[in-house]
Amino acid sequence: MVSKIKRWIIGKPLKTHEIQDQKLNKLKALALLSSDALSSVAYGPEQIVTVLAVVGMAALWYSLPIAVGVLVLLLALILSYRQIIYAYPQGGGAYVVAKENLGMNFGLIAGGSLLIDYVLTVAVSVSAGTDAMTSAFPALHPHSVLIAVVIVIIITILNLRGLSESATILAYPVYLFVLALVVLTIAGFYKVLTGHAPASSHAPVGSPVAGIGLFLILKAFSSGCSALTGVEAISNAIPSFKAPSEKNAALTLSMMGVILGALFSGIVFLTYWYGIGPSVHQTVLSQLSTEVFGRNGVYYFIQATTALILVLAANTGFSAFPLLAVNLAQDKFMPRPFKSRGDRLGYSNGIMTLGVASILLIIIFEGNVSNLIPLYAVGVFLPFSLSQTGMILKWIRTKPKGWGMKLAANLIGALICYLILIIFFITKFTHVWMALIFIPLVVFVFHKIHQHYLDVGDQLRIDISEKLKDVKLSENVIIVPVSGITTVVKQSLLYAKSITDHVIAVYIGFSPEAIEKMEKQWEEWDTGVRLVTIHSLYRSILTPLSRFIDAVKYKTDEAGARITVVMPQFYTKKWWHALLHNQSGTLIRAYLVRTKDIAITTIPYHFKK
Amino acid sequence: MVSKIKRWIIGKPLKTHEIQDQKLNKLKALALLSSDALSSVAYGPEQIVTVLAVVGMAALWYSLPIAVGVLVLLLALILSYRQIIYAYPQGGGAYVVAKENLGMNFGLIAGGSLLIDYVLTVAVSVSAGTDAMTSAFPALHPHSVLIAVVIVIIITILNLRGLSESATILAYPVYLFVLALVVLTIAGFYKVLTGHAPASSHAPVGSPVAGIGLFLILKAFSSGCSALTGVEAISNAIPSFKAPSEKNAALTLSMMGVILGALFSGIVFLTYWYGIGPSVHQTVLSQLSTEVFGRNGVYYFIQATTALILVLAANTGFSAFPLLAVNLAQDKFMPRPFKSRGDRLGYSNGIMTLGVASILLIIIFEGNVSNLIPLYAVGVFLPFSLSQTGMILKWIRTKPKGWGMKLAANLIGALICYLILIIFFITKFTHVWMALIFIPLVVFVFHKIHQHYLDVGDQLRIDISEKLKDVKLSENVIIVPVSGITTVVKQSLLYAKSITDHVIAVYIGFSPEAIEKMEKQWEEWDTGVRLVTIHSLYRSILTPLSRFIDAVKYKTDEAGARITVVMPQFYTKKWWHALLHNQSGTLIRAYLVRTKDIAITTIPYHFKK
Repeated sequence: MVSKIKRWIIGKPLKTHEIQDQKLNKLKALALLSSDALSSVAYGPEQIVTVLAVVGMAALWYSLPIAVGVLVLLLALILSYRQIIYAYPQGGGAYVVAKENLGMNFGLIAGGSLLIDYVLTVAVSVSAGTDAMTSAFPALHPHSVLIAVVIVIIITILNLRGLSESATILAYPVYLFVLALVVLTIAGFYKVLTGHAPASSHAPVGSPVAGIGLFLILKAFSSGCSALTGVEAISNAIPSFKAPSEKNAALTLSMMGVILGALFSGIVFLTYWYGIGPSVHQTVLSQLSTEVFGRNGVYYFIQATTALILVLAANTGFSAFPLLAVNLAQDKFMPRPFKSRGDRLGYSNGIMTLGVASILLIIIFEGNVSNLIPLYAVGVFLPFSLSQTGMILKWIRTKPKGWGMKLAANLIGALICYLILIIFFITKFTHVWMALIFIPLVVFVFHKIHQHYLDVGDQLRIDISEKLKDVKLSENVIIVPVSGITTVVKQSLLYAKSITDHVIAVYIGFSPEAIEKMEKQWEEWDTGVRLVTIHSLYRSILTPLSRFIDAVKYKTDEAGARITVVMPQFYTKKWWHALLHNQSGTLIRAYLVRTKDIAITTIPYHFKK
Repeated sequence: MVSKIKRWIIGKPLKTHEIQDQKLNKLKALALLSSDALSSVAYGPEQIVTVLAVVGMAALWYSLPIAVGVLVLLLALILSYRQIIYAYPQGGGAYVVAKENLGMNFGLIAGGSLLIDYVLTVAVSVSAGTDAMTSAFPALHPHSVLIAVVIVIIITILNLRGLSESATILAYPVYLFVLALVVLTIAGFYKVLTGHAPASSHAPVGSPVAGIGLFLILKAFSSGCSALTGVEAISNAIPSFKAPSEKNAALTLSMMGVILGALFSGIVFLTYWYGIGPSVHQTVLSQLSTEVFGRNGVYYFIQATTALILVLAANTGFSAFPLLAVNLAQDKFMPRPFKSRGDRLGYSNGIMTLGVASILLIIIFEGNVSNLIPLYAVGVFLPFSLSQTGMILKWIRTKPKGWGMKLAANLIGALICYLILIIFFITKFTHVWMALIFIPLVVFVFHKIHQHYLDVGDQLRIDISEKLKDVKLSENVIIVPVSGITTVVKQSLLYAKSITDHVIAVYIGFSPEAIEKMEKQWEEWDTGVRLVTIHSLYRSILTPLSRFIDAVKYKTDEAGARITVVMPQFYTKKWWHALLHNQSGTLIRAYLVRTKDIAITTIPYHFKK
């Protein structure tokens, strides 16, 4: 039954060697892994404009130099991550780079930040998409948490069904969004070039602005850089690509960089040219579309694909989180189950952990996750900074051909990333202080897990050169608790006798009469097994049995023998019959196996009626 | 920890022979077992007056002949239950009488009705007491369900601490209530006799009343008879009395009859004499106290003890239900655990079942249980009727000395009880139809349970004359699933080898490489045990292991051997470490023991760090 439902939801299990069919080609990978980065085009330019408009509409021309800065950082990141892909083709991105070049703790900081970050990505993007939906259909507003949760569940299930299948379904909206923005940009430039959009609607570049300062410009720049979140995802997910995976991943990353850079600069320029400022009623993108097309079909197409891409940005988290978790689990910093592939060959434990964690976040914050956005940006720029730093050290250490240029790219990238981190901590400390608690906490947990696995390894390791067949075998003593003279007791005694001659039956009675009766019947039955009877004054079975076992164990340990307790377990034909039987056997077994160093043999007795 | 909390709540366990200290003397028993019946004095007269007042205040004199009818029934019931106590001193009351004289199904109807009824008693009386409390302190009103639940929990705990202790605590309020009503009655009569209460305030006996009819009188009579609920409790609880238990129980029953009869007739007469009618603002008892004493300390004392006795009426259920359940469990109609005594020698399973069931009822009905009162009355009068009928048949069959008088008493009692049942079904069918569903349902469940225990008995019974030592023992084959070469696997293999030479190790690998590596290491280790390797295409362990066991079982069954599967079970030092290990071993064990006819031996491995 449960198995049928599972089959229906996630599909039939796949054989291990079918993994090749689950690998992604470049077009599908681009859709799955860049949805997060591309969706930032929908809000990145708006964030720049919002900060600048504080000092007046005349300041908006500053968005052009700021956009150039963002493009420089984008270029540095793309170049750097291309190098990371070739240098660390097993995936793991910033975690592996920081670990190899800066030491394990920096690796764990990068990995921990990214794990937290992917949870935030899912929660933030699904909530943003839900907001867009409920803005269009206000009747849905009271159910927004439920809608967000259902969306996360759907994305989780799609991912459990396998990468290939989810990529096939999710690629369409991503490319439709790209198409929509390409159409918008081309049409916008056409109007600019043909003179339909007058230059009078914006202040010329270089106009003096009262009240503007370095701090504000840096703040606008750091806000604009939030458009770069998600750039790292491909470097974590290299193993999901079809062979040659590094080459395909690097190419996909470059494609993403070109699309992202082109759309971002196009939108920023048009926003400036058309003189669009922030508005509480409409997004910047919506205002721009209205200016270019008016409120026609094209406008609504742009709005719909934008809402959709916000939701699908979550999917980048689902593609990258499980693979990062595999890397951490392989190094024994995360629980081992994250390494095992599910029925459909995805890392289902990672997928489900991400789904559950982001649902909890959505429920706890009741869908109002916008306060988490700065935290989310810190979670991305910390691993950006660490991976750039790691690459710098790598070039200095190894000095490969042409390392000067490579070093320059990483140096510029690192400087910008650290600058942005500092700006975040200065301008939005009230939102990002949590990172100073959560990230060390996660690293601490990683270390505790690691220590446990090392301890377990020590305890399980054996010296294979000691041949097993030469080890001396110990004698067996079997204790059979008996409750009366029944078929079940007979079955247990026969089993015990078939193993050893040292069998002791033990009967725990609540009254002298019950004990006397048992002893008489036992003699009559002529079992050939010694019966020990114990009078339990307090009507407990567990305590006297446990003491008796301890007493026998004391003697057997001396003799080098080992104790087995044989216990029957009833299985009734109908589930409710189980309620009619004392489950004390199960409790006693659980207690003994947990506290004593003895073997426990269960002999099931399946009732036939 | 859990054990310490338990000790603190219910006290230290008692030895079985300390049961004598837990037996009740007459005064304590009277308090515990008659609180239900005595509390009815607080509302029985009111119910009569409420029905009569429908046709006018002049009709209230009818309450006097009706009270005489109630007294006749009370006398018949007391006489009858005294005879039942002597005839069936093991307790069980109506259940045993009906079972012995009318057949098992009538016994089950009586027993089932009473069980349901005790649950209703607890729910109804605690809710009524809570209502009295929240009327006095309206601020508590929004929490009335919570208060009622807490009261049930307190009474349950008191009963779990043992009969003797709860009787000591609960006896005071019962005797204070009796004292309060005795004072009220004497003072009331004193005022009547000294002429302080004029005869003009009531219509004289025999006054003609327009609109009164037989139906209304019968309805008032049946409502008044609700004052008799709880009379049967003593007959169910005879084993709780100090020896000689029958004699003490019979004497206690007579004492209760005298007190109940005297208080009931006194209150009815005074209510009539003072011309008190029903009021929505005050109970009849409150009006009567006001007339007799005014609103002074005595008045508030009467009100407080009345509220308290309503709550304590619940305790009668706690004294009678567990003993009735023991009787039914002894006859295999209820689950066996109802027969075992808890740490404090009470039948704790019965006590807790009653507590939980009545809490559920209070929560489901949100404390508004007044609609359940008629159902509750049916639940009492059905066993009353059946036990009277049973006694009639007993006298006719056995014809002991003076059986004519005894027969007459039971005949009158039976006729009145049947009459009341008919009146209930005619006048309050909308409330009592549920009895026609629940009682047959309970009887059906009793039979299903009984059948299961008979089936189990058949399956467990063995022929003791077949000497066990002569039974031929079968060979053992041991299967050891191995996951690698570790101390745990070594421990399992050594255990298996110490038992038999027929040991098969089985390794389930997910890739040809893993299998090849395992085979090589195995050979190197030189175990002397054959290793079977299985390649699991779908990365499942359970399915291939289960198939392998089936295949081995097919061969061993032919050879008359039996299979044991040896599995290790890890116990980590800290609870959270358990999260870091696959619990697949536990799942596999649970599956195998449930579905296969093999022995499963668990070898615990306790991590030391």
